[in-house]
Amino acid sequence: MIPLLSELTSLISSFPGIGQKSATRIAFFLLKQPNQYIHHLVSAIENFHDHVEFCSNCGVLKNTNNDCSLCAENRDQSVICVVENPSDAFTIENSGDYHGLYHVLMGCLSPLDGIGPDQIRLPELRSRVQKNKFIEEIIIATNPSIEGNATANYIAEDLKEMKNIKISRIAMGLAIGSQIEFADSKVISQSIKFRTQIINF
Amino acid sequence: MIPLLSELTSLISSFPGIGQKSATRIAFFLLKQPNQYIHHLVSAIENFHDHVEFCSNCGVLKNTNNDCSLCAENRDQSVICVVENPSDAFTIENSGDYHGLYHVLMGCLSPLDGIGPDQIRLPELRSRVQKNKFIEEIIIATNPSIEGNATANYIAEDLKEMKNIKISRIAMGLAIGSQIEFADSKVISQSIKFRTQIINF
Repeated sequence: MIPLLSELTSLISSFPGIGQKSATRIAFFLLKQPNQYIHHLVSAIENFHDHVEFCSNCGVLKNTNNDCSLCAENRDQSVICVVENPSDAFTIENSGDYHGLYHVLMGCLSPLDGIGPDQIRLPELRSRVQKNKFIEEIIIATNPSIEGNATANYIAEDLKEMKNIKISRIAMGLAIGSQIEFADSKVISQSIKFRTQIINF
Repeated sequence: MIPLLSELTSLISSFPGIGQKSATRIAFFLLKQPNQYIHHLVSAIENFHDHVEFCSNCGVLKNTNNDCSLCAENRDQSVICVVENPSDAFTIENSGDYHGLYHVLMGCLSPLDGIGPDQIRLPELRSRVQKNKFIEEIIIATNPSIEGNATANYIAEDLKEMKNIKISRIAMGLAIGSQIEFADSKVISQSIKFRTQIINF
């Protein structure tokens, strides 16, 4: 294999989810592209890296020279939605139903991997909640996984002494549009356990 | 989602085997890397694209300014190994047991996808075989798939009128180190059909 190819595939295979074979496939794909595509790709990588950063307050992405639009004053300051990753915030934002603030943890608690409360942005959450007098509710939107649920419980326990703040968890159960026939038994158990009343007798 | 992120993820998701979600994951990975990594990546992409090309003779990769090392005079000029992709040639080369020439088809026959003999490098193979007087054997190393086998048969049929050239196909059967218990029934059928005699009675 020629050195320039090995160098490129070794860099590409350091990307998350990309192995040596996919990296080689991507390198061959790049070789077949016109110069214009390569210039576009290279400047997109450089611009993104140079002009985008994680907001030091909420942890979502912002343009380096602008204020964070998700921390802006026109957002509902009374609620903070806590998510694991910046992309979760984008997904919730795209639903169009949430207009409050965000707090990205940059991961979730995972003692087996050595990730405790101080390895994720939990101290930052605590200090934000302490400083901000407008906060009325914290919606914990970590993933419905074992680690995500443990993180949610930890946050609830950690913040429960702060009076007058409601702490909630996003609803978990059957996904809208899914079919009971094909649902996982844990999903069914959960949707029965957290059933909601529809008629008051 | 901010425009610089959408632009980058849309480019990355055009890579083979990468969807929108993997592209976003890769973009976040890139954002967390130091400047040095980004410079290294960008120059590796540019150098690879600017200084590497497909050899017009064999179809494998070569440095733009150098002669192709796989077409060099020190290679065994009496045999051509026909493969689908440049990476197949690298894999065969790494085995260390083959020292002849290569011919990359850049694909294989697939009539359903509109890929006929003229869409891959079959005319080039024919003219190479016609011009080169030293060739004694053509080893067809297309993949052991339906399309790969059809391509092998087509090449054999196409070149059979050229006298004194042996046309062979790489051996197919049970992979060394695999277990019969877990082998696919088609693999078993093939390994029985093409069984080889080990003792002459």
